[in-house]
Amino acid sequence: MRCVVLLSGGLDSATTLAIAVNECDEVHALSFDYGQRHSRELESAKRIARHYGVVHKIIRLDMRAVGGSALTDDIEVPERTLEEIENEIPVTYVPARNTIFLSYALGYAEVIDGDRIYIGVNALDYSGYPDCRPEYIKAFQEVARLGTKRGVEGRPIKIETPLINLTKAEIIKRGMELGVPYELTWSCYRGGEKACGRCDSCLLRLKGFMEAGYEDPLEYETYPDFYRRYLERRRW
Amino acid sequence: MRCVVLLSGGLDSATTLAIAVNECDEVHALSFDYGQRHSRELESAKRIARHYGVVHKIIRLDMRAVGGSALTDDIEVPERTLEEIENEIPVTYVPARNTIFLSYALGYAEVIDGDRIYIGVNALDYSGYPDCRPEYIKAFQEVARLGTKRGVEGRPIKIETPLINLTKAEIIKRGMELGVPYELTWSCYRGGEKACGRCDSCLLRLKGFMEAGYEDPLEYETYPDFYRRYLERRRW
Repeated sequence: MRCVVLLSGGLDSATTLAIAVNECDEVHALSFDYGQRHSRELESAKRIARHYGVVHKIIRLDMRAVGGSALTDDIEVPERTLEEIENEIPVTYVPARNTIFLSYALGYAEVIDGDRIYIGVNALDYSGYPDCRPEYIKAFQEVARLGTKRGVEGRPIKIETPLINLTKAEIIKRGMELGVPYELTWSCYRGGEKACGRCDSCLLRLKGFMEAGYEDPLEYETYPDFYRRYLERRRW
Repeated sequence: MRCVVLLSGGLDSATTLAIAVNECDEVHALSFDYGQRHSRELESAKRIARHYGVVHKIIRLDMRAVGGSALTDDIEVPERTLEEIENEIPVTYVPARNTIFLSYALGYAEVIDGDRIYIGVNALDYSGYPDCRPEYIKAFQEVARLGTKRGVEGRPIKIETPLINLTKAEIIKRGMELGVPYELTWSCYRGGEKACGRCDSCLLRLKGFMEAGYEDPLEYETYPDFYRRYLERRRW
């Protein structure tokens, strides 16, 4: 089986890649250079792809023309509480991002005659992103079936979302079992030397490691109080 | 009403733009620079957008990374009969192209708070492209509804396909009524000084003008026999 994996360089996509490598004969990782404000994530994607020895393509995307998000524009990345994170659509939402990524993956999969596209979307921790929900993925699956040559031939490319119903803690547990090199991943919205430990993404990641019962091997500038307390309890 | 129109610079998209200008208060045209082998089409898109005085954005797309088509790779554009054109998926099929275009349009529409996306797909003349069929558009409509903030808020962006059930001749009739400047459009797969008059796209266009009862105002290097005979009958 030949598979395409969307690899951002973050924790979820690295875990997804590990799962795909386990399930497929040939894996092609796709990353996107979409004018992210920092290139740490792409560097991580390269290292992770190298770690797994898979084909890795980086596609340049002109997202500034679309704009409208703190991840691509010069909007301040806000600091929010875990509660706010779990209940609002964040300003870091990039309009139609997953749709654009999946569209490219679909085109690429057609060209290599790929059977599956893996995407590490997750409906639980990030309820704020509409394009991470199962019903959205189901709709895109129909686009893949109806909008491609392979689909017309009755061999539609399948969209695989192995993380969709897992909590961040469950994702991390799964990844630890598979030996995912989490020290190579990057989740922070900021591009500093170390992860900031304050943005939405750092908070969700550290909460996940805590709930999974592991320590995050990544270096942080600072830890939020809940994780600091967890480390103290752990190391005692 | 604020609308986004996918404008390739061809006959269908120019007609679609004319329809959108008629129906909407504010029109934004989107074109894609996707490593087409020639830039004639994009030049046409610019001229048509200028003619209608609409906002025009050109998005650079990294399609060579996807590849797999005579429109972006160095595959020879084949010459086929009208019968072959109407019954096979052409090598000029770009994998997932409309899905990628619609995804960008969706992101752009979200950013400008647009209500509609117009795309000039046509199910009749080009049955060879799977992503021109009504069922495909319906599936993408679901992606637009489920994968965006606006959709979540109950105000989904609508995908409009005013040409979908029209023959090429009907499209041209409609466009002539609306005064579309067809001399500014470009349909030829080759990028010469004049349209070649031999590729699939030129053949379908000339057949359309003939059946609509008009002369194509564009200059051609050569005319296919059927069109030459038509001109002779007409001018007699």
